[in-house]
Amino acid sequence: MKRFIYADNAATTQLDMDAFEAMKPYLLGEYGNASQPYSFARTAKKALKNSRETIAQCIGAEPEEIFFTSGGTESNNWAIKGTAFSGSTKHAFITSVIEHHAILRPCTDIESMGYPVSYLPVDCTGTVNVGTLSEYINSDTRLVSIMTANNEIGSIQDISALATVAHSYGAIFHTDAVQAVGHIEIDVNLLGVDMLSASAHKFNGPKGIGFLYVRKGTPLMPYASGGGQEHHMRAGTENVASIVGMATALKKNVAAMKDIASHLALLENRLLVGLSNANIRFSRNGSEAHIPGNLSLSFPGYSGEALLHRLDLMGICVSTGSACNSQETQISHVLQAIGLNEEKAKGTIRLSFGKNNSENDIDVIIDVLRKILENSVTRF
Amino acid sequence: MKRFIYADNAATTQLDMDAFEAMKPYLLGEYGNASQPYSFARTAKKALKNSRETIAQCIGAEPEEIFFTSGGTESNNWAIKGTAFSGSTKHAFITSVIEHHAILRPCTDIESMGYPVSYLPVDCTGTVNVGTLSEYINSDTRLVSIMTANNEIGSIQDISALATVAHSYGAIFHTDAVQAVGHIEIDVNLLGVDMLSASAHKFNGPKGIGFLYVRKGTPLMPYASGGGQEHHMRAGTENVASIVGMATALKKNVAAMKDIASHLALLENRLLVGLSNANIRFSRNGSEAHIPGNLSLSFPGYSGEALLHRLDLMGICVSTGSACNSQETQISHVLQAIGLNEEKAKGTIRLSFGKNNSENDIDVIIDVLRKILENSVTRF
Repeated sequence: MKRFIYADNAATTQLDMDAFEAMKPYLLGEYGNASQPYSFARTAKKALKNSRETIAQCIGAEPEEIFFTSGGTESNNWAIKGTAFSGSTKHAFITSVIEHHAILRPCTDIESMGYPVSYLPVDCTGTVNVGTLSEYINSDTRLVSIMTANNEIGSIQDISALATVAHSYGAIFHTDAVQAVGHIEIDVNLLGVDMLSASAHKFNGPKGIGFLYVRKGTPLMPYASGGGQEHHMRAGTENVASIVGMATALKKNVAAMKDIASHLALLENRLLVGLSNANIRFSRNGSEAHIPGNLSLSFPGYSGEALLHRLDLMGICVSTGSACNSQETQISHVLQAIGLNEEKAKGTIRLSFGKNNSENDIDVIIDVLRKILENSVTRF
Repeated sequence: MKRFIYADNAATTQLDMDAFEAMKPYLLGEYGNASQPYSFARTAKKALKNSRETIAQCIGAEPEEIFFTSGGTESNNWAIKGTAFSGSTKHAFITSVIEHHAILRPCTDIESMGYPVSYLPVDCTGTVNVGTLSEYINSDTRLVSIMTANNEIGSIQDISALATVAHSYGAIFHTDAVQAVGHIEIDVNLLGVDMLSASAHKFNGPKGIGFLYVRKGTPLMPYASGGGQEHHMRAGTENVASIVGMATALKKNVAAMKDIASHLALLENRLLVGLSNANIRFSRNGSEAHIPGNLSLSFPGYSGEALLHRLDLMGICVSTGSACNSQETQISHVLQAIGLNEEKAKGTIRLSFGKNNSENDIDVIIDVLRKILENSVTRF
């Protein structure tokens, strides 16, 4: 059997088998439209209700604050555009330079419609300084949107402190927690956020499903209007199977979170020590506070793209920069924002481990990386 | 075993087993992010490409004109709002009074933003007169959106004639074909449409997936922006499994379309003759040109809602009005638009048959309906 090591869990994760099994009945026999009034739809309706409660519980929310979407990108677009269009005397938006494109591009969209957007810089660890937000925010600030954890370098922000600053100016606080939910403890009340985006396929749920948490009373325009689903906030026939899969995966990952985090910390450490012991010159990007298993490593003098392809030939999946688009090869905006020089930035790969990775995976990666890095072909 | 007859295929359909089997590999082992550059993602990427080609072929489009969405509601919202926001000197929109709420509500949304929307009336068969469009349209008309077939009464519009009128004024033509795709022959070039919405779960595909056909050169703002997926028009990690399921289901239904349509015509006829033979007083709503298997029947003097529930007790799923929202019990806007009097409108149910229904289902429904209608409880 050909070797296969998946070390790109920040891009997407394998669907948990329990989640798949939970989905199956709703893909097969229980196909009723959950919004129909007859008894055949009751099982689907109940599954929807249970899933909403499960997800709410996992993040400390109320069930009626969970709105199902088609994924993180929709949740983020909704939070930004739904706030812009909700009608307010306040017009300004604040986000950070290291957000995912699913935040940055909707911000560009609303900028072109006349809403001013400020982009907070980050320090060299990819962290937004709370004081910097205080400098940018003012009484015209409508929304502050800062990601909980960065997808490329894993850095975790001090969301609760940022939300406090936002609220002190009467602004709404949203966080793109796509990379964080299911991986670190998330409690919307401890964080103090008004909105939070999540995507199932990042925590071993299915692709094409996610949710937006919206705190009760937060003004927000519906993103898709039509049928009355999701309390008239997000129309469309409910994707019950995927919702059930998402809830099952999240509940399972949250229950095992501490164990998984310990396992991933062990893998991270094994990789870092192993690379050092192999006398490989590298540096790690990001901050001490980071998503478990997310390692952005720079190998100065090498091409990250070439490394990716050489690793691929050896059956190992890793990423360069962001997973958004395999066609884009320019230096990632995140690596630019943390001030990496071009040499380091071009020599950067992201390894992101998940609960299915083993210590043996790490040993193989170290061995393969050592051999590749000894080969001058990947130098540029 | 308890009797179960599903006669609500216009609300949603059972996932085809071939579609489920086609989805499984992408839900399980082939979980790679289709936008990643390593070889593990190649199978997913190829499946995406093949699915796009299959779907394009089924409607006479080019593959690059198919944009995957989370379903019909998203496709419709995108067509309406994406056109409004695409920037043009033309501002006015035209639609019809019998559109699905997934068109009507986005129209209300853009009206509140200052875009004038006209709503074309229909005749008593639920048909938009082409001459009426000519009366309403003018040089300021940006978009005309008329559904291919109505979800409640099945009436099919003369899309090609309507599109011709729209184009003669330089307007874009969109059709909500959610109820039509996979059920009647659809060729975007014969129809002459610029945009067309479809939803997989209406043609035995999975829920939570659909597409928007956008003819090359049609100006349209991306609906969800972020990663560069779908040629930068609809961001979000591709839901490969559901897309494969959609393509499989559509290809199969299109291949068997004539046979299924004949079968459904037979069922329709059997039901209508059977009800007459049982001396049940009823009238059928809609037009001669209608979606196969879609029967809107009025039983004057009876309550459609009570009929639905009595049928439900007997294991038969039908619908009243639209499937959008089981909480809304007011008279449907479609039945109002075709001028049904209150007695008839309140006594209306929709039976919608699919390829899995049998002649025996019809015989049972006639028998059960006869018994229910003899029981005065359902009179109001």
